[in-house]
Amino acid sequence: MKDFCGTPGTFFGLVLRMSQFIFAAGSVASMVSTTSFFNFTAFCYLIASMGLQIIWSLALALLDAYALVRKKVLPNPVLISLFVVGDWVTATLSLAAASASAGIIVLYFNDLGHCHFGPECQKYQISVAFAFMSWISISISSLIMLWLLAAG
Amino acid sequence: MKDFCGTPGTFFGLVLRMSQFIFAAGSVASMVSTTSFFNFTAFCYLIASMGLQIIWSLALALLDAYALVRKKVLPNPVLISLFVVGDWVTATLSLAAASASAGIIVLYFNDLGHCHFGPECQKYQISVAFAFMSWISISISSLIMLWLLAAG
Repeated sequence: MKDFCGTPGTFFGLVLRMSQFIFAAGSVASMVSTTSFFNFTAFCYLIASMGLQIIWSLALALLDAYALVRKKVLPNPVLISLFVVGDWVTATLSLAAASASAGIIVLYFNDLGHCHFGPECQKYQISVAFAFMSWISISISSLIMLWLLAAG
Repeated sequence: MKDFCGTPGTFFGLVLRMSQFIFAAGSVASMVSTTSFFNFTAFCYLIASMGLQIIWSLALALLDAYALVRKKVLPNPVLISLFVVGDWVTATLSLAAASASAGIIVLYFNDLGHCHFGPECQKYQISVAFAFMSWISISISSLIMLWLLAAG
């Protein structure tokens, strides 16, 4: 199995996982700091999806850190297959959740002309922005993992 | 370059492209048959995204059909790289558009308790359902293309 930038157990791999974790945590933190998010199904879905992202990315970040410290080589086909499935599922859920929430924010800010939730509106926007940033880093990881598996 | 199920120029590849085209066309047709879609940015974005999907899938379906009739072998690395980029861009845009529209539909049907656009509500739902079906088939194509490129 080839070893390149972003492979599990490399420094760039760890940076990607940490960025996914931090952005997802920022998204959840911003959303739960509002008092009305539970009135919107899409925002609840965003929290669930980002929660899953946090667990997944943290687990893989710890695995990467362990491999880096112990200088172990992680990539083997079975492990990579598992990473590919997990990455694709979380990446798809993240994009869907971020887009659904963005759809509602655009509806309130643009289509209906105003957002009548006061200071909470900005928190919704920040949460969605963080969710998209988390999705960008998980999608890079997903592509690297699939490439790694296919290249064998 | 390996040749397997779903590769450009095969029957299954053509079926995938045709299903993407048909579902995307169904989504656009259902959406433009409503009179108020232009009030929603997400629905306009859905039409734009599905429009791009229609053009892309139809072009590749014609290429597949040509290769099948003339019994030509399409896969070469440059062509596959182009297909990979196009497939990933359209797949990402389709999922984002379908999710954003679904977020608004769930907001009206579930969170606000009713949809006050009369018979148009059902057309919105049908359009989003078709968009998701189109996304499923384009995502299968995308994975096959990336696998084909990586497997060399």
